[in-house]
Amino acid sequence: MTGLGVGLIGTGYMGKCHALAWNAVAPVFGDVAHPRLVHLADVSPELAAHQAKALGFSRATGDWRDAITDPEVDVVSITTPNAFHPQMAIAALEAGKHVWCEKPMAPDFHDAMRMAAGARAARKVAILGYNYIQNPLIRHIGKLIGEGTVGMVHSIRAEMDEDFMADPDALFYWKSEASSGYGALDDFGVHPLSILTMLIGPVAEVMADLARPFRTRPTAGGGPREVETWDIANILIRFASGVSGAIQLSRAAWGRKGRIVLQIFGSEGTITYDQERMNELQLFTRLGKGSEEGFRTILAAPVHPPYDKFIPAPGHGLGFNELKIIEAREFMRQIAGDPAHIIDFEKGLEIERAVHAMAESHRTGNWVSVGG
Amino acid sequence: MTGLGVGLIGTGYMGKCHALAWNAVAPVFGDVAHPRLVHLADVSPELAAHQAKALGFSRATGDWRDAITDPEVDVVSITTPNAFHPQMAIAALEAGKHVWCEKPMAPDFHDAMRMAAGARAARKVAILGYNYIQNPLIRHIGKLIGEGTVGMVHSIRAEMDEDFMADPDALFYWKSEASSGYGALDDFGVHPLSILTMLIGPVAEVMADLARPFRTRPTAGGGPREVETWDIANILIRFASGVSGAIQLSRAAWGRKGRIVLQIFGSEGTITYDQERMNELQLFTRLGKGSEEGFRTILAAPVHPPYDKFIPAPGHGLGFNELKIIEAREFMRQIAGDPAHIIDFEKGLEIERAVHAMAESHRTGNWVSVGG
Amino acid sequence: MTGLGVGLIGTGYMGKCHALAWNAVAPVFGDVAHPRLVHLADVSPELAAHQAKALGFSRATGDWRDAITDPEVDVVSITTPNAFHPQMAIAALEAGKHVWCEKPMAPDFHDAMRMAAGARAARKVAILGYNYIQNPLIRHIGKLIGEGTVGMVHSIRAEMDEDFMADPDALFYWKSEASSGYGALDDFGVHPLSILTMLIGPVAEVMADLARPFRTRPTAGGGPREVETWDIANILIRFASGVSGAIQLSRAAWGRKGRIVLQIFGSEGTITYDQERMNELQLFTRLGKGSEEGFRTILAAPVHPPYDKFIPAPGHGLGFNELKIIEAREFMRQIAGDPAHIIDFEKGLEIERAVHAMAESHRTGNWVSVGG
Amino acid sequence: MTGLGVGLIGTGYMGKCHALAWNAVAPVFGDVAHPRLVHLADVSPELAAHQAKALGFSRATGDWRDAITDPEVDVVSITTPNAFHPQMAIAALEAGKHVWCEKPMAPDFHDAMRMAAGARAARKVAILGYNYIQNPLIRHIGKLIGEGTVGMVHSIRAEMDEDFMADPDALFYWKSEASSGYGALDDFGVHPLSILTMLIGPVAEVMADLARPFRTRPTAGGGPREVETWDIANILIRFASGVSGAIQLSRAAWGRKGRIVLQIFGSEGTITYDQERMNELQLFTRLGKGSEEGFRTILAAPVHPPYDKFIPAPGHGLGFNELKIIEAREFMRQIAGDPAHIIDFEKGLEIERAVHAMAESHRTGNWVSVGG
Repeated sequence: MTGLGVGLIGTGYMGKCHALAWNAVAPVFGDVAHPRLVHLADVSPELAAHQAKALGFSRATGDWRDAITDPEVDVVSITTPNAFHPQMAIAALEAGKHVWCEKPMAPDFHDAMRMAAGARAARKVAILGYNYIQNPLIRHIGKLIGEGTVGMVHSIRAEMDEDFMADPDALFYWKSEASSGYGALDDFGVHPLSILTMLIGPVAEVMADLARPFRTRPTAGGGPREVETWDIANILIRFASGVSGAIQLSRAAWGRKGRIVLQIFGSEGTITYDQERMNELQLFTRLGKGSEEGFRTILAAPVHPPYDKFIPAPGHGLGFNELKIIEAREFMRQIAGDPAHIIDFEKGLEIERAVHAMAESHRTGNWVSVGG
Repeated sequence: MTGLGVGLIGTGYMGKCHALAWNAVAPVFGDVAHPRLVHLADVSPELAAHQAKALGFSRATGDWRDAITDPEVDVVSITTPNAFHPQMAIAALEAGKHVWCEKPMAPDFHDAMRMAAGARAARKVAILGYNYIQNPLIRHIGKLIGEGTVGMVHSIRAEMDEDFMADPDALFYWKSEASSGYGALDDFGVHPLSILTMLIGPVAEVMADLARPFRTRPTAGGGPREVETWDIANILIRFASGVSGAIQLSRAAWGRKGRIVLQIFGSEGTITYDQERMNELQLFTRLGKGSEEGFRTILAAPVHPPYDKFIPAPGHGLGFNELKIIEAREFMRQIAGDPAHIIDFEKGLEIERAVHAMAESHRTGNWVSVGG
Repeated sequence: MTGLGVGLIGTGYMGKCHALAWNAVAPVFGDVAHPRLVHLADVSPELAAHQAKALGFSRATGDWRDAITDPEVDVVSITTPNAFHPQMAIAALEAGKHVWCEKPMAPDFHDAMRMAAGARAARKVAILGYNYIQNPLIRHIGKLIGEGTVGMVHSIRAEMDEDFMADPDALFYWKSEASSGYGALDDFGVHPLSILTMLIGPVAEVMADLARPFRTRPTAGGGPREVETWDIANILIRFASGVSGAIQLSRAAWGRKGRIVLQIFGSEGTITYDQERMNELQLFTRLGKGSEEGFRTILAAPVHPPYDKFIPAPGHGLGFNELKIIEAREFMRQIAGDPAHIIDFEKGLEIERAVHAMAESHRTGNWVSVGG
Repeated sequence: MTGLGVGLIGTGYMGKCHALAWNAVAPVFGDVAHPRLVHLADVSPELAAHQAKALGFSRATGDWRDAITDPEVDVVSITTPNAFHPQMAIAALEAGKHVWCEKPMAPDFHDAMRMAAGARAARKVAILGYNYIQNPLIRHIGKLIGEGTVGMVHSIRAEMDEDFMADPDALFYWKSEASSGYGALDDFGVHPLSILTMLIGPVAEVMADLARPFRTRPTAGGGPREVETWDIANILIRFASGVSGAIQLSRAAWGRKGRIVLQIFGSEGTITYDQERMNELQLFTRLGKGSEEGFRTILAAPVHPPYDKFIPAPGHGLGFNELKIIEAREFMRQIAGDPAHIIDFEKGLEIERAVHAMAESHRTGNWVSVGG
């Protein structure tokens, strides 16, 4: 059996991450044919050729359409800036390829809808690169909820924080321009939403408060320039299931590097998780003896599949990049028509709908319904 | 010099806590005369007499007015249920006594206003028992903010969680009745607000979402009864200073026992704190060398006064009850006309005003201004 | 019923700690008569008078024999430097008083034996101030072991670390003089030994390696002076029961403030504890479902008596000084002839015997048996 | 430039781990030619063929000598049980190949010496798979020590614990047979020794106490069988540099899954590390302001090379398997004659010498010198 032919557009960090995943998925899982790294595209032929060699692709191009139309290419990884996603994803789908596109779908919701329509029309697999949901422990949280380990879930909290915008003296750059989106809301918000959507289901209503920690930022030229996005977002959220809670997002949280904290409260227990310690989860359930109860620190282990495909011993730890290998396997599963743990363009659209509703609630000061 | 004469009303946990504090404040601090434990009141003469003996009071009564009018009593500790606070506090003030009343002031805001008016009219010291603000580390956080260690504070998060209402099978009791108040909002909300008011200043606008994890609760009789309060509250908050953030409260958070988490984000650093580890705080500031930066776990120590009055060695730990001893000392300082770290009836009124505004925002679905 | 008459010798930190405990034991526990603070002794009449006033004692003296012979005194708290313990404790016992003496017993083992003999002869209660064993969580560890929660205990580890000798530029002072003892070994070693003796039983054999991190220390005069004690001790230990393990002690561990870490390994589980987080313990036992197993963080709570005597709510935290209040209650229990959780002079002698055996093993390079 | 030709012997977990590393090293680092996965050997031709396909090797064999003599093979990864290492490594070296052999070298010290002699004779690169030393944070600890961040290091502690032998009811298997070695001592001891040797230098003297938590274990047949190895080892250690400390090892520590704890104490600070949280290290240094000092939790980041080759953002986390990719790169560096961070057969011999000295010290009850 010949492996899938892979085309890759974009070779920044996420492009490399996709390449590493395509490269490792067969030896890690041992149950699929090696994908063939066929065609790599980047902004110039020179850069593409250099990266193709480093990442192990056979062909290189400065025109992404070459990679999409290559007859040996079966699937296309799209890892370019968000604004390019709609054009590339739709073209790839129209060319009859399966698409693995980095998230979020598009800055503009209308474009995201066009992408979803494109996937429906092409009848090809089209998924988004929400890799956090692939963590064996995040998947185990889903299992715990499904099995009723924490009873009926009634409320949640989520936080996502980094500090790359925390310094007021950092120069103004595109992430502070309105054209880049809302700020933390879409830059970060889609991540906890991807997890919560998986675990809790669709969002019903939202109420957000966006904030600018710094009104202006210095420019290289000298004078300050007004910041147009919001580095901080605080959101009240209600899910269709009746679960409610809050989400808090900040790109200006000094000391936080890759923090995504979840707290899930149920009638029989509590689950918490912190992405900065992605190989641990905390679980509280009653054990019948109050004097010996407490939150358990559970270490990722072979009993949390597919951790076992990587390491046969517990507590040794997976890395962030390895989540992408799991995602590649799930993508292949979906292509093969097997049940897969992925967020496709349809589900992705729901995430973006929620984000835009949040922005609207901030503008109007009112709760906004996230109609389907 | 004779010590202050103390009257105490109520001998539940907080009554005992006040008694222990009055008893210990002189030997701990070594700079004030021993208060004299004069008169103790409880609901029956028998109970009062029994408790007076245990707690070391000279006289006992089943009528709280006796304790208030006792000429040897200079200060009155009020530790009865909230509904009794207005009547007792106002009577004590009118009798010319200083008042140390447990928080919150009163279920009804109008009564709280009457209490504040009573204190103004009597020109006596009237403070509320917000003991968390007395933790040397909470006070140190105030110092850090004041000295600019974390730069300009721009956002905050606060959580308060316990699990005494987490069990859906627990019988309906008064905390689920509307007459007890809003639920987590006033039961818990005043605690983080007391700390945040101290650290960040007055609240300007709020937007709350209250939730009932369980619609009904079983009754002893058998049939279920509808729950009238909200065990969960999620709140968006904006302070007059421009700081914004979120507060999350739950009495139904399995595994949480006395959690009060603060996160304070500034332009130069971040401070976090968890009351369940009340002898630690976390501080992130840049150190000029990225490879060696991280959150520092700072242990309470003699350099964080008045920890030094309790223990001359660092890292040995204070207890929750000992915060009340510090509070007693601050109360005495205020009485002596010295600068004191307390929340008096005026400041307490602002906290309750914010709580009622939160409840209103939930009812209306709109942001509510916390007018002064 | 009249309370015990208390004499106190020494008013440094431990003296204050004893005074606070005598002062609080009745209101905290509510089941004993208030001790009467009768007579306080310190090195000068002036200091004693000043401290008697601050700590609430009726009489003061510059001659400790006055406190011991005072007919109103029933029990004597001895909190002076170790070298004075034998003389004072034996005199107090001979005067017919019960004795509560701070640990360790004496620098010289022969003196410690004389103290134990004195207690036997006087038939009075004589206990040592090993307060760490009074922590409700340490007592709960004993209960867990006794009930077989972790099965048969087979090995242990203990560490005790502070950093007051960590700075090589700190001036030479008496703790570096041979006359003060061995160094970390006796200064610290008695603490983990007091806990381990309670939990595991008597020590059989030891093998120690003592170390000097700094050969010399500066003197006020200028030139360096040779250090005569060992700030670090590493010890292999075998208990009579067959349990084995290691103890590690350091007064030169930068950043450690009051660290006492225990790890107790059994055939069915593991218990760990860190004194710097004295309101938590960690427990691992199998729960029958590997994917949900992990160390549980158990917070001190009313189910861990006598925490309940201090606070009726879980997770609120006791302080270091409050352990002394529990110790006072246990001392009173022993005096009343009730079962008490204390280390008396006999048991204390075993601890000191083990320490001296460790020092000998270092000198000889051989395992040393701790003969009874 | 053609990449190195790789031969691999053994396809258990470590074999897979080597294959994944050879497969990923070029795209991760981007500065070396892709190794060619040439020849894979396992115990049967069928298994070898199956694994070659899964792991991406061109040729397969049931006879490991085929892989070694294959002219297209430049380097041989040896991942078979320890007893086979000497024969295979020496043969590969004699065949003119570079060797990457999993640790430890051999059960018998004489064999290990023969391996080192073989490497010297062949003048080929021969390294051992001590992957923990490749963790960017472990390497950063080395940098911190080298730069004097914690001053002069004077003492250390190391622990390594897992729980796969913790259950007394687990059946007797080969790890309890004397032929497998000493037990925890060699099974685990080489890991902390590999790190300590890198960080602190050569070992001078050791004193060990080995322990059997369970005298017998059940057999499949029924009756109990006497355990011949020691699942627990406690060791006192002195390094040539004067540093001293202790090492504690247990395969019977319930709840520990991959714990390797290091504590490194210096005259200016302390470093600690726990392999179960391999993306964090703790550092204490004085900051000139006691009230803000504490252990800093430092998250792995691009400033800790070669983390940056994997992920350009801080705090996202590497996995255990990814350490092997770093090790592959270092092996290639050594082959290219560049400075490399590896443990070659010579250094590996020193580690094994220390282990055997520990065993001897246990037998004799005396300190044993680790002569070079």
